[in-house]
Amino acid sequence: MPRVSQEHLDARRNQILTGARACFARHGYEGATVRRLEEAIGLSRGAIFHHFRDKESLFLAVAEDDAATMVATVADNGLVQVMRDMAARAHEPEITGWLGTQLEVSRRLRTDPLFAKRWAQRSDAIAQATRERLERQREAGVLRADVPIDRLQRFLELAHDGLVLYLAMGRSVDDIEPVLDLIEEAVRRR
Amino acid sequence: MPRVSQEHLDARRNQILTGARACFARHGYEGATVRRLEEAIGLSRGAIFHHFRDKESLFLAVAEDDAATMVATVADNGLVQVMRDMAARAHEPEITGWLGTQLEVSRRLRTDPLFAKRWAQRSDAIAQATRERLERQREAGVLRADVPIDRLQRFLELAHDGLVLYLAMGRSVDDIEPVLDLIEEAVRRR
Repeated sequence: MPRVSQEHLDARRNQILTGARACFARHGYEGATVRRLEEAIGLSRGAIFHHFRDKESLFLAVAEDDAATMVATVADNGLVQVMRDMAARAHEPEITGWLGTQLEVSRRLRTDPLFAKRWAQRSDAIAQATRERLERQREAGVLRADVPIDRLQRFLELAHDGLVLYLAMGRSVDDIEPVLDLIEEAVRRR
Repeated sequence: MPRVSQEHLDARRNQILTGARACFARHGYEGATVRRLEEAIGLSRGAIFHHFRDKESLFLAVAEDDAATMVATVADNGLVQVMRDMAARAHEPEITGWLGTQLEVSRRLRTDPLFAKRWAQRSDAIAQATRERLERQREAGVLRADVPIDRLQRFLELAHDGLVLYLAMGRSVDDIEPVLDLIEEAVRRR
């Protein structure tokens, strides 16, 4: 039997994550049954769970995929840009649905320490990228100098989480851009 | 048969809402079965649903109860004070659990227009109180004058929602006070 190429493995992994994301977005965490995951991904459960240990691992892999994209955007353009990108896609049910599914697991984050630990790796990566970006901005002199960086970081994280909740709850984000400007302005040098 | 006094009705209603809140906070929306609601409230399903049409109405009544408290706090001290009060109680599982249960219904808010409409009455009351408070503050000259009130209002709502998500996801709010100061400062006259 020939060895499966890395390229093939990566393509298969992407197929699984894309289908799983759509399925979680549409049906929520509990509603994304193994049968629905099979349909959305177009592979048998055997093939899916050859790549991912279980549904929880699959969910966390989709979330990690998001986190990697966010980290890249934060590094280049900051957390407010992540918010602008989210707001621009607020009309897509897959975006709001997937954010909503992340809210649904909040109970497990509070009650299941192992799950919380796995999730925290995702949040930590974003937090670190935000911090590094803020440090570079402070060195460049564009950041306000009177407030410690960790306070500005948490302020931005709070605003980001607020937008997540806004979108997941189906609230309108019409004219949100000037509000995001206000957030950006609050961390900048006057 | 003597008529039931208003006082008795109010006491009964309070008993139901208090028990229901604890039950929703602990078990989530789906997990708060009728049996568990009976146990938490200490009344039979017949007695409970004599006062509230169904579980959804009970859930919304608890949420409206919250909204009334929030509206009073906003009117007196503003939305940031609501956030300070929430943060001060972040260690209480009943608080974070109840916030988490509100997140769990986000899917229904996006997919069930009637439910969304009932929920919106709650949000609208808080939004209006926030707006009125901001208008009074602008007249008093303590608010920054260069940004329209509706933008400041949405900024504060976004920050508030961010704190809700923070707490519901079990994230630490240690040292959050200076971050709330930053939010307050962003809407004030310099």
